[in-house]
Amino acid sequence: MLDINILGSGNAGQVPVWGCHCVACERARLDTSFQRGPCSLEIRTELGVTLIDAGVTNLAERYDFDDIQRIILTHFHMDHVQGLFHLRWSERPEKIPVFRPDDEKGADDLYKHPGVLDFQPPFVPFQTMEFKDFSITPLPLLHSKITLGYLIERQGICVAYLTDTVGLPDSTQRFLSNKTLDYLILDCSEPPTPSAPRNHNDINLALWTYNTLEPKQMILTHISHRLDCWLMEHADTLPSNMHIAKDGMHIVSI
Amino acid sequence: MLDINILGSGNAGQVPVWGCHCVACERARLDTSFQRGPCSLEIRTELGVTLIDAGVTNLAERYDFDDIQRIILTHFHMDHVQGLFHLRWSERPEKIPVFRPDDEKGADDLYKHPGVLDFQPPFVPFQTMEFKDFSITPLPLLHSKITLGYLIERQGICVAYLTDTVGLPDSTQRFLSNKTLDYLILDCSEPPTPSAPRNHNDINLALWTYNTLEPKQMILTHISHRLDCWLMEHADTLPSNMHIAKDGMHIVSI
Ligand SMILES: [Mn+2]
Ligand SMILES: [Mn+2]
Ligand SMILES: [Mn+2]
Ligand SMILES: [Mn+2]
Ligand SMILES: [Zn+2]
Ligand SMILES: [Zn+2]
Repeated sequence: MLDINILGSGNAGQVPVWGCHCVACERARLDTSFQRGPCSLEIRTELGVTLIDAGVTNLAERYDFDDIQRIILTHFHMDHVQGLFHLRWSERPEKIPVFRPDDEKGADDLYKHPGVLDFQPPFVPFQTMEFKDFSITPLPLLHSKITLGYLIERQGICVAYLTDTVGLPDSTQRFLSNKTLDYLILDCSEPPTPSAPRNHNDINLALWTYNTLEPKQMILTHISHRLDCWLMEHADTLPSNMHIAKDGMHIVSI
Repeated sequence: MLDINILGSGNAGQVPVWGCHCVACERARLDTSFQRGPCSLEIRTELGVTLIDAGVTNLAERYDFDDIQRIILTHFHMDHVQGLFHLRWSERPEKIPVFRPDDEKGADDLYKHPGVLDFQPPFVPFQTMEFKDFSITPLPLLHSKITLGYLIERQGICVAYLTDTVGLPDSTQRFLSNKTLDYLILDCSEPPTPSAPRNHNDINLALWTYNTLEPKQMILTHISHRLDCWLMEHADTLPSNMHIAKDGMHIVSI
C-alpha cells in the first residue's frame, strides 16, 4: 500500500492571504475547502508516513510521533520547513530522519538545535535512494535556494513532485524525458505572465513542461491567490488531464 | 480601555509536547484548556491590538489585518517570531510597525524579505516609547539571544513582561526596584532545579525575583510540560498572589 496525498497546495502567502479581499481569498474564507496551506505532500505506506516538506505548522496535531517515518525536504525556504521548529522539541529518544538537499545553511538554527530531527547526509542528485517502501530520486530544480524535486517510484508507477521551480534544469528535463510519468505534480504559482516569473512557474511555463514531458496526469500546486482568481475564469481552458491541487487531495494509491 | 491577555503561555516545545505521554501532556490532550502555545501577550486598546511576540502560527486566523496596530518583539528565537513568516506575505499597502531589540541578524530571512512588516529602528534599553494608547520601556534580559522585557504603563498602572530570561541583569533589577509593579509576568520554564538553568528561570529563580521586586501580583509564563507536572503536585506551595499563566488568560483591564 502506498497513498500519495496533497497536504498543502498553497504558496508562501497561502490562501486566503492575510488581509486580502480578492474573490479567491473571500471564497476560501467562506468555504474552507478552498483554503491552501504551505505546499507539501504526504506519502502513506504500510511503514508509516513520509512527509515531503514540513511547512504546515500544526503537524504535531495532525500526526502522532510514531506515525512519522521520515521527512524529505525540497529546500530550506521557511514555507517548506517552518513546521519543524515545533516538532524538533519532542523529547522522544527515537530520532526522525530528515533528508535534504546539499544546503549548508539550512534555515535559522535548525542545524544547530535539531532536537529530535536527524538530518541525513545531503542527497546526491539523480542517485536513487531505495527505502523499504518506495524509491526516490532527487532531481535538481531552478529556484532561489538549492532545491530538489523528487521522482517517487513503486511497482512501476512513477510520480514526479517538482516544487519550487521556474522551468527545469536541462539535466532534470533530460532525465524525466526518458521516464513515463504517471503523475507530474508541478509548481505553478502564477497565472500567465507576460515575461517569465523569477522563482516559480506560471501557467505558460507549466504548459511548456506538460507539452514536453507528456505526463499521463498533471497536477498544479504551490498555487497563489492570483492563480486561483485566474482559474475561477479560465480553468476550462486547461488540458483535460491537468488538475488543480487542493489541500487533502488524494493523488494515487499504489 | 486597555486589556492585557496571555496569548500563549508555553515554552518552545509547547504543551502537549509532540509524542510525550507525561501526565501534563496527556491532560492537555484531553482538555485543550491546558494546552500552551508559544509564549506571547495581547494588548487591546481603543486603537487596536498590540502583540508582544508572534510565535503563534495562526495569527492570520485570529486577527483581521486591520486589527493589528503593531508588533513588539522580545527577541528573535523562532518560538517568538515564527508566526511572522506567514503574515509578512500580506499584500496590503499599509505596513505593520514591528519594534524589536538591537539584533542585527533577526531570524532567517525576515529582514531580507519583510513584506508587510515594517521593522523599526531597534529599541534603546530604558528609553520609554510613548505610544498613543500606552507607554512601554524596554528592559534588558539575560538570555541566549539579545532579549528585551517590557514595562507597560498606563494611568499609573505598571505591568512588567519579562521573558525569556534567567534572572535579571543588575540594571533591570535596579530599574524595577524603583517601581511599584501591579503585575509581573515572568519567565518560569522549569520546576526547581538543583543548579540554576541556562537560559530560563526555574521556580527558585522566579521566587527570588518575587521576593526582591515584591510585585502586587505575579504570573509565571513560558511554562514547560516539566513545570506543569511539578505544579500538579506543588502549586499550593506557591505564594497566594503568584499565578500560573494559561492561554487566553485575562490579566488586567486599565
Ligand atoms: Mn515555496
Ligand atoms: Mn521556495
Ligand atoms: Mn522562548
Ligand atoms: Mn528564547
Ligand atoms: Zn487574495
Ligand atoms: Zn510531557
